Amino acid sequence: MDVEGLAAVSLAWLQQPAAGIDTNSAARARERQSQLTKPRGSLGRFEDIAVHLAGLQGVVQPRVDNVRVAVFAADHGIAVHGISAYPQCVTRQMVGNFSAGGAAVNVLAAETGATLEVIDVGTLDDGEYPGSVIANRCGPGTADFASGAAMTQRQLESAVQAGRAAVRRASAAGSDLFIGGEMGIGNTTSAAALACALLNMPAEALAGPGSGLGPAGVQQKAAVIARALDAHEGRLDDPLEALRRLGGFEIAALVGAFCACAQQRVPVLVDGFIAGVATLISVRLSPGVGSWMLHAHRSAEPGHGLVLAALEAKPLLDLGFRLGEGSGALAALPLVRLACALHGGMATFADAGIADA
Amino acid sequence: MDVEGLAAVSLAWLQQPAAGIDTNSAARARERQSQLTKPRGSLGRFEDIAVHLAGLQGVVQPRVDNVRVAVFAADHGIAVHGISAYPQCVTRQMVGNFSAGGAAVNVLAAETGATLEVIDVGTLDDGEYPGSVIANRCGPGTADFASGAAMTQRQLESAVQAGRAAVRRASAAGSDLFIGGEMGIGNTTSAAALACALLNMPAEALAGPGSGLGPAGVQQKAAVIARALDAHEGRLDDPLEALRRLGGFEIAALVGAFCACAQQRVPVLVDGFIAGVATLISVRLSPGVGSWMLHAHRSAEPGHGLVLAALEAKPLLDLGFRLGEGSGALAALPLVRLACALHGGMATFADAGIADA
Repeated sequence: MDVEGLAAVSLAWLQQPAAGIDTNSAARARERQSQLTKPRGSLGRFEDIAVHLAGLQGVVQPRVDNVRVAVFAADHGIAVHGISAYPQCVTRQMVGNFSAGGAAVNVLAAETGATLEVIDVGTLDDGEYPGSVIANRCGPGTADFASGAAMTQRQLESAVQAGRAAVRRASAAGSDLFIGGEMGIGNTTSAAALACALLNMPAEALAGPGSGLGPAGVQQKAAVIARALDAHEGRLDDPLEALRRLGGFEIAALVGAFCACAQQRVPVLVDGFIAGVATLISVRLSPGVGSWMLHAHRSAEPGHGLVLAALEAKPLLDLGFRLGEGSGALAALPLVRLACALHGGMATFADAGIADA
Repeated sequence: MDVEGLAAVSLAWLQQPAAGIDTNSAARARERQSQLTKPRGSLGRFEDIAVHLAGLQGVVQPRVDNVRVAVFAADHGIAVHGISAYPQCVTRQMVGNFSAGGAAVNVLAAETGATLEVIDVGTLDDGEYPGSVIANRCGPGTADFASGAAMTQRQLESAVQAGRAAVRRASAAGSDLFIGGEMGIGNTTSAAALACALLNMPAEALAGPGSGLGPAGVQQKAAVIARALDAHEGRLDDPLEALRRLGGFEIAALVGAFCACAQQRVPVLVDGFIAGVATLISVRLSPGVGSWMLHAHRSAEPGHGLVLAALEAKPLLDLGFRLGEGSGALAALPLVRLACALHGGMATFADAGIADA
């Protein structure tokens, strides 16, 4: 068996079925909701979250205490085409910032009590970081996908394994919710190209401002994506092959993480556009993965709406975020926890001696 | 001076100007936002919240640590027309539930560390509650406003004073944010009638299911409101007179509380439909009040959208809540806190040695 054959075998786990939902626990949770001292349905989506998590966790009263955020960072060869408002060196600078505790994800993780891991899955160079960054490098950034495949089959395998390994660490630490974040200058271009391939849509529909392009920059980005889609035409039908050709290491790591979460019974709170594209790939690989995903926020990146529509997902928040890092998911985390607290902590009509409708 | 004249004098404080905003602190906060290690604007509305609160609190780095929730409970004479899914006795039963700690607002206050006060401003009877409820009763429920004024001028004054007194207690306790909640079977009917009067709209536009009416019930509710608007025709142009004729004691208490907050420099996180109508009245009394109000959530009650549009308000959450009690505001509280934490805690580009765009 040649190297490519070995790699294909070692990617087969991604398509294993997701764990099943405990419909009995979900039904008992729905029944509990109907007895709490409030008009039925009056807590809207909080009721649905509690019932959904009951089914995922296999308990009537779910809890989300121990949350793991894993931020995957990588660079992108496509960045040479000037498709980002920031220079490529910012990827590693931001990893340093994560490591030093100064980024948005650090503040949000500290405030919500989530544990944070930062994993370098392939930034441009491999110098030292000031603090604790996990090195799981698949290469010095991806290759430029405008003219060839972003990564080799081996690199793809290595990247999805990095995601799976992060979930294994999270599970071993007792995490009851996983958030996958990302950092990588150029990664909205990669994600937009992947969404074009998966949704069969033109570049103009998915290209957006990312970290801050103006209208001319967005047009240029769409042109780069359109050229790349032409170059890979006829080779993008298989979602894993699309991921290998157009993806980033951090996007592949998120795919590995999300598939692993669904297999290992760890619910996921999905961040924004990049994580949404990784979710779309994961669901194409194994449809049951979708049940394990709660969607946190609607990104300001215009392509996210199309990805969410394809996933039939309605995120909890719509506050104009477009940062990534897992920031939107951490912002929504308190809502998930409050939904569980209400579900578990409110009195029933019988307890409180109150007339029901 | 007769009794009515005395009351009019004692309501004059409501129309005093709201405290001014510290535009210098807001501008410095906006400048700080532009230096934090993220693309400018990438935290969307979180950035606006931090800047807005900086202007209200007169500091560059605002904080929302000490939060007071005051839930005002009262009964409504209009309930005799069968405009609610629940019997009137539920108002007092729910006050008992607040007192015993079993309601949604109790769980949310406990989880967010907000302090909770429950104030009976006029439930149907005046029996003992099991726990600590503040008695500030304006009568045994309002009169039926289908055929006459809901309250006397004295009762109106007493109700708005109850709200002002709650804000004085909150201020004395060092609260840096105030949430006004309400409980009262029939109060969406009263709020809808008030919104009709203030927005000059027909009953059908504002009547909604409240705690759970079906389509026939909503139609009946709209008919009751339409009849009442006819009965008070020509007497509803003045917002305070509209409040006296159509309002509930808890709605008047919220108006008193919101006007007091804006005068005493206490920002408000506004709950749903009922609190939104109280905000609309407060802003009509003193336009500057609007600057002190942050809007937490969009209620499932259809009339809330019209009230929000009139206020030009865009709430943080839209999760299908329709419970009241301050529940939507408490659900949004963690978002306000995270916005402040990010604003105060993130590194700047200069701190972190990161290239700016």
